[in-house]
Amino acid sequence: MKVKYELICNDGRARLGKLHTNHGTFDTPMFMPVGTLATVKTLTPEELKEVGSAIVLSNTYHLWLRPGEDVVAKAGGLHKFMNYDGPMLTDSGGFQVFSLAKPKDITEEGVYFKSHIDGRKLFLTPEKSIEIQNKLDSDIAMSFDECIAYPADYDYAKNSTERTLRWAKRGKDAFNNENQSLFGIVQGGEYADLRKWSAEETVKLGFDGYAIGGTSVGEGKDVMYQMIDDAIKYLPTDKPRYLMGVGEPSDIFEGIERGIDMFDCVLPTRLARHGNAFTYNGKINLKNLKFKEDFTPIDSECDCYACKNYSKAYIRHLLTAKETLGGRLLSIHNIRFLIRLTEEIRKSIENGNFLEYKKEFLDRYENSDK
Amino acid sequence: MKVKYELICNDGRARLGKLHTNHGTFDTPMFMPVGTLATVKTLTPEELKEVGSAIVLSNTYHLWLRPGEDVVAKAGGLHKFMNYDGPMLTDSGGFQVFSLAKPKDITEEGVYFKSHIDGRKLFLTPEKSIEIQNKLDSDIAMSFDECIAYPADYDYAKNSTERTLRWAKRGKDAFNNENQSLFGIVQGGEYADLRKWSAEETVKLGFDGYAIGGTSVGEGKDVMYQMIDDAIKYLPTDKPRYLMGVGEPSDIFEGIERGIDMFDCVLPTRLARHGNAFTYNGKINLKNLKFKEDFTPIDSECDCYACKNYSKAYIRHLLTAKETLGGRLLSIHNIRFLIRLTEEIRKSIENGNFLEYKKEFLDRYENSDK
Repeated sequence: MKVKYELICNDGRARLGKLHTNHGTFDTPMFMPVGTLATVKTLTPEELKEVGSAIVLSNTYHLWLRPGEDVVAKAGGLHKFMNYDGPMLTDSGGFQVFSLAKPKDITEEGVYFKSHIDGRKLFLTPEKSIEIQNKLDSDIAMSFDECIAYPADYDYAKNSTERTLRWAKRGKDAFNNENQSLFGIVQGGEYADLRKWSAEETVKLGFDGYAIGGTSVGEGKDVMYQMIDDAIKYLPTDKPRYLMGVGEPSDIFEGIERGIDMFDCVLPTRLARHGNAFTYNGKINLKNLKFKEDFTPIDSECDCYACKNYSKAYIRHLLTAKETLGGRLLSIHNIRFLIRLTEEIRKSIENGNFLEYKKEFLDRYENSDK
Repeated sequence: MKVKYELICNDGRARLGKLHTNHGTFDTPMFMPVGTLATVKTLTPEELKEVGSAIVLSNTYHLWLRPGEDVVAKAGGLHKFMNYDGPMLTDSGGFQVFSLAKPKDITEEGVYFKSHIDGRKLFLTPEKSIEIQNKLDSDIAMSFDECIAYPADYDYAKNSTERTLRWAKRGKDAFNNENQSLFGIVQGGEYADLRKWSAEETVKLGFDGYAIGGTSVGEGKDVMYQMIDDAIKYLPTDKPRYLMGVGEPSDIFEGIERGIDMFDCVLPTRLARHGNAFTYNGKINLKNLKFKEDFTPIDSECDCYACKNYSKAYIRHLLTAKETLGGRLLSIHNIRFLIRLTEEIRKSIENGNFLEYKKEFLDRYENSDK
């Protein structure tokens, strides 16, 4: 079946809802941790469930290279391959067009890449991206798009956005997996008229959900929020809306305030690898010498496995000694932190006090003396 | 309290027993995984319990350098520091005398090291080793000894073995932790008369258990087994006997056949980091291309978390992509393999068919066409 979005209630534009998928139903707004290579770095599927993570994102470009979509298909799809039975979304490779390809590598037909592993020349098209995702058999596939760099001049953004729409059509036509849903992606760079055009035309094609892409690519916060505003008002209310690549608490709040239902970001696991942790009083770096004899948890208000069982001093020791359990404990904590944030936000939407909760959380998060 | 060894039954010289400690009782013979830096690499204490690991070894030398024994003591000891409530043994730093110091760094007073981290000059004495271990508050501390290299000339081995005995006496005199047990270590190199002398004199000093040291340092298998024979007959039957640094299945069998109760080795976690796994048909390397589309578990007869949930193809993918979950799954599997081996061996001792089980296991393990 295709995913179904169920709107429970609004608080302003913020939406409380449920997304029904072939691998279970989850509440929205929801944060998705990223499992680039069919693993959320350092963690097992059981640990993801334990932190309340309801849906995981995995990367088409990376799985195309390793182990290859045919290996995953022979395993019975991505769920079986990685032993994860919850909902799963695959991106399209569009972000890698931004991060790995050069403008001149982008043609109407598709995008040339140099493999980040061995420099081998690769060619990814909308059809190929969809074929790979059909084989990976995620619950939600994404249209192949170009994630436009910021800033982009108007003509470049217009041409790219129009091409992304043509790619979306081609991908939709090539799509062949009745158990999988397909989301369209709104591009348009920083231009309001292009965002409007992209949203309206993408909706006309008819997808199971809509993403807002091209954010978190170096634009300022205000520009990002404007990009959301310029696109989201043209998206249907009966489909899920997904803001791609966003994971900072303040951005999650701003997205939800504007009607976003889903987020993904590598931030919690990337922060963990560098020894950083979210706390209700802002981020801290556990490698800091001041934690050497701090036998309290990362955040005394956190209910995660790391905070219930380990001290800052122990985690600092693990990080200093380059023991991988350190990054693993921080990954558990950081993902739990964002998942719990969405839990609290959902409660606030239900209670009609989303904006109060936002102010309360961010005042403390951004202004604490750590 | 001090540990108490309870002999259940013998099968030849092989012993089935129990070791009672302040943190619980476990059956012997038992394999101990190594948690060098207060963590068995990649794993949590819960995972160690799940694989049936009943006692963990941690390293005095490494914890002395990082985070420092005083940090651990302030945390309330090693158990609290690493959130592990089972039995724990600390080595003395004696193996590092072998692996890190040069012969001329060894004096009657103690041993000069260059720190393997920053080259800083360090001085470890029997008293200091015991003081550190008293502070770490493990269940079992080890006497500070020199682990003699192989081969060693007779005079060197004799002088070293006599000094190790003087160090054992000094450590025992300095020992100051009534909740901790202290084991003596038999040295003597490859010389039967020195092994006998070392065993008898160490026993005269009176320890809570006895280890046979100086094995697994490059000598051949037959030499190692002879070293055990030359020492173990002089050890009391009412105390546990521990063969240090041994973890190959064949060596575990040979040790148990001669009356050994405890083993430790970094082998299962080190093999895991290099992509290797124990199987009942011998070791395999999961990075091998032939496993790319092998959707069967590492070992279909294994009951570990990795084998119950993941395929060789998936683990190979994780290893190839340098995802740490790969090494973690292999660590779980390899430790479980050795722990289960000791479980099976204990059953065979109880059933009086240890030698039959040894032959059956090793015939298959060493001769299979993998």
